[in-house]
Amino acid sequence: MTARRRPTEPKRERRDLAQQVEGRRAVRELLAARRRRTHDLWLSNDADDGAVVAEIVELAEAAGVRIRRVPADQIDRRARTGSPQGVVAFAAPLPTNDVDDLLGDPRAFLVALDGVTDPQNLGAVMRSAETAGATGIVLPTHRAVGLTPAVAKAAAGALEYLPVAFVSGVPGALDRARRAGVWCAGLDADGEQSLYELSVADAPLVLVLGAEGSGLSRLARARCDVVASIPMHGHIASLNVSAAAAVACTEIARRRAG
Amino acid sequence: MTARRRPTEPKRERRDLAQQVEGRRAVRELLAARRRRTHDLWLSNDADDGAVVAEIVELAEAAGVRIRRVPADQIDRRARTGSPQGVVAFAAPLPTNDVDDLLGDPRAFLVALDGVTDPQNLGAVMRSAETAGATGIVLPTHRAVGLTPAVAKAAAGALEYLPVAFVSGVPGALDRARRAGVWCAGLDADGEQSLYELSVADAPLVLVLGAEGSGLSRLARARCDVVASIPMHGHIASLNVSAAAAVACTEIARRRAG
Repeated sequence: MTARRRPTEPKRERRDLAQQVEGRRAVRELLAARRRRTHDLWLSNDADDGAVVAEIVELAEAAGVRIRRVPADQIDRRARTGSPQGVVAFAAPLPTNDVDDLLGDPRAFLVALDGVTDPQNLGAVMRSAETAGATGIVLPTHRAVGLTPAVAKAAAGALEYLPVAFVSGVPGALDRARRAGVWCAGLDADGEQSLYELSVADAPLVLVLGAEGSGLSRLARARCDVVASIPMHGHIASLNVSAAAAVACTEIARRRAG
Repeated sequence: MTARRRPTEPKRERRDLAQQVEGRRAVRELLAARRRRTHDLWLSNDADDGAVVAEIVELAEAAGVRIRRVPADQIDRRARTGSPQGVVAFAAPLPTNDVDDLLGDPRAFLVALDGVTDPQNLGAVMRSAETAGATGIVLPTHRAVGLTPAVAKAAAGALEYLPVAFVSGVPGALDRARRAGVWCAGLDADGEQSLYELSVADAPLVLVLGAEGSGLSRLARARCDVVASIPMHGHIASLNVSAAAAVACTEIARRRAG
């Protein structure tokens, strides 16, 4: 029976929820945000240089986190990213949100990722969305990456602040968004409207991004009120998904602030 | 004597110049651009699905490239990136440009990277710069990454079109830019002016980006006419360098096109 399960579909109850956080920025924000409990902090014996590590120790002590100084190779064996920078924290699972609650925010600015599988890209999109003032991110539970240490590290702490809703599928979440009066704006290299002409940027909005390479799926695209594109001025046809997300989120933030 | 050489400083004559190109998009653009000779193309035996592979074969045949079908594990052993997607090409070194020639272009829009060491970031910045119509990228020869297969893959073919100038140091190149009447605009999280107020966006321009984490160096910053920042609306203080580059390059392209 288990043989029929796709290896890319982790069991719901075993999903990665950023319980292990690596890297200085990510661990600093985990401790500074105080949104969830951190129970253990491992610091490499040779990681005692620099202001960020001193700040991490101070925050951890203030929060009553157990701090262990361990040899660098022990950090590296335990780490699940290539460069933990001598810092690994163990925390309670990241709290998640109900997508309908996020859709009910009158200032909703959500980012939905339909099929992004690269942890660097997911983390980078979360970082860009958070800095743009997004009110949440919507991720599918199936055929997508969980909140692994690599995601947390690339997010540089953004997942401690950006509300996350897991949904069984992005197209269904977009149906719910439309019923809630929230606009669905897709972003795709062949979108029919320039990002700069997007008239819904300051309305309640879900920005929908497709998978690396293939872009928006047919089912997601069919549910978008508009599909926007970023004007291209060279030979290469598109930005990568995390660059496109940064550009679109920043432009939406500019329009909302203006 | 060789022991005194820093391991991060490759000998000039042995510098990676994208002679090995991996991944479908990157190899497709290598062959489509025809800016340099490709002598060999390795295709995995099981890589014959998909329109891009068919296009790669067609372009390679038209250019007289030797095509070898090899077992997938042979590709993986030879590959220098984690996912060559069954395609590895071997080509002449990427031609490089003199920085003064790039600065002499009356429409100059250059991107200078001072200390970016992550190949994913360098490749992503090249892709974003190319799609924004940048006229070249300026890279230091020392303490920076060469044009490795990982850079070429992340650039998704952009390095076949975007002129590259290597310089001994970015601060010196900025001195030459100023003498040539080209504006130097830094980008940094603590820049004094909003990117959207950048008055020099449609003048001949070098956009200067600093290292991941530490940002613009003191020497580079001192030579910038202005240091711009991207307005932040969340808790995280900055975008990652490739997201920031995408936002800034796209904004400069918008201003130039407008």
